[in-house]
Amino acid sequence: MRIARFSVPDTAADAGTVRFGLVEGELEQPQALVIAELAGHPFTPEPQPTGRAWPLEEVRLLAPVLPSKIAAIGRNYADHAKELGHEVPEVPITFLKPSTSVIGPNETIAYPEISKEVHYEAELAVVIGRLCRQVPRERVKDVVLGYTCANDVTARDLQRAESQWGRAKGFDTFCPLGPWIDTAVDPADLAVTCTVNDELRQAGRTSQMIHDVAALVAHVSEAMTLLPGDVILTGTPSGVGPLRIGDSVCVTIENIGTLTNRVVSRD
Amino acid sequence: MRIARFSVPDTAADAGTVRFGLVEGELEQPQALVIAELAGHPFTPEPQPTGRAWPLEEVRLLAPVLPSKIAAIGRNYADHAKELGHEVPEVPITFLKPSTSVIGPNETIAYPEISKEVHYEAELAVVIGRLCRQVPRERVKDVVLGYTCANDVTARDLQRAESQWGRAKGFDTFCPLGPWIDTAVDPADLAVTCTVNDELRQAGRTSQMIHDVAALVAHVSEAMTLLPGDVILTGTPSGVGPLRIGDSVCVTIENIGTLTNRVVSRD
Repeated sequence: MRIARFSVPDTAADAGTVRFGLVEGELEQPQALVIAELAGHPFTPEPQPTGRAWPLEEVRLLAPVLPSKIAAIGRNYADHAKELGHEVPEVPITFLKPSTSVIGPNETIAYPEISKEVHYEAELAVVIGRLCRQVPRERVKDVVLGYTCANDVTARDLQRAESQWGRAKGFDTFCPLGPWIDTAVDPADLAVTCTVNDELRQAGRTSQMIHDVAALVAHVSEAMTLLPGDVILTGTPSGVGPLRIGDSVCVTIENIGTLTNRVVSRD
Repeated sequence: MRIARFSVPDTAADAGTVRFGLVEGELEQPQALVIAELAGHPFTPEPQPTGRAWPLEEVRLLAPVLPSKIAAIGRNYADHAKELGHEVPEVPITFLKPSTSVIGPNETIAYPEISKEVHYEAELAVVIGRLCRQVPRERVKDVVLGYTCANDVTARDLQRAESQWGRAKGFDTFCPLGPWIDTAVDPADLAVTCTVNDELRQAGRTSQMIHDVAALVAHVSEAMTLLPGDVILTGTPSGVGPLRIGDSVCVTIENIGTLTNRVVSRD
């Protein structure tokens, strides 16, 4: 299943209402994709369709989930740690991004005035499906709802200047998520790419992670309870680099989809 | 005003319902304090009393606010930076604690098995009253609802081992808040103390902060939108040290009150 969150289109009586839906069709034929509305919330065992559906092109997709927290992992691909001049960490580096940083597909990344060096970071995002804590790695699959694409946007100059990354990675709009949650994909070996204005900048595979998805969910949940909808970002492959105002940045994860955002000036 | 969040006592028909209330009386006479229930939510301009009231002793106080995010500041008192062997930072060190770490007065701090060195850190907490971002320091007073006591509980051994503090300061129960929000107090020069089993461990004054409350709210909101109920922790004075299972730890802030929590084993 591909679970999306969307705004009901203008043609319906309840235009603008936020709903969840299933995205149906072949990703290779984007014009033929359809969104079938779900009754209620996807964090229930068997979400039921309402019977309404629209061509996907006619609805506005939103961030597929509004997480209460986003736990993110630093330097989880050896090549990326190297390109920033760091050792590969033995223990996953864990930091939090605020919920106010989340935006959805096609929303704009706002470039803040106080940074001169905003970077993209393409990442696989894990969406938690049920309340859990201290999850052993062999039970991680039971607490994961699915996977989506994320961009861990970072003010690299502030990151260097401030020892903790709360601000550098915490600006409004610095956590694009989407386009939907894929509940069937196996996260073990997926291509993760990033393009800027259609130019390839990052091309890694999730199999290159130092700590895999099961290890990361176990590690984070060892400290903190995870709630349905919480998100874990799994780190970025090498190739990070600058964004400029006007750029269009795409994160694509194999078998999941593409998350596209444009960069605008903050004010 | 002192705004508390509490559970309606067993004697009422709606026992167990969570409400806000005003704490009335003199702090020096704790037995005489009364809680007067408010209709609705205190994040409205003039919350109205419902007419019901109880002796404060008869209600269970909860964390006075459920923040969507907690932005915290590291090493904001020179003596504390020194005691941990660090330089005084020019730019405030900003990190986030997850909402799942919040507990209220008299709830228990759960000592995790994977740490051998859990520390208390007494702090003044700022509670944001309205949605805001990029707040200039002269307008900070307009966005602050009030102040409460916080304990930025920290697994010091994990903090040393992991370069980012997401886990070390993010365990469930590692952010006690309370006992209530004082909306009238001036944060400029308040005594901040911490006792463990009635023994004084920390005694500082908010006037010793390197970056004051207005500077911190301006700094954090420069990056991220703050929502009503969000909390900013302002750093701890010197004297941090270990907690042990069975300890009772009290954070007292002059003119606000005392936040007491007992330490228990996690499982």
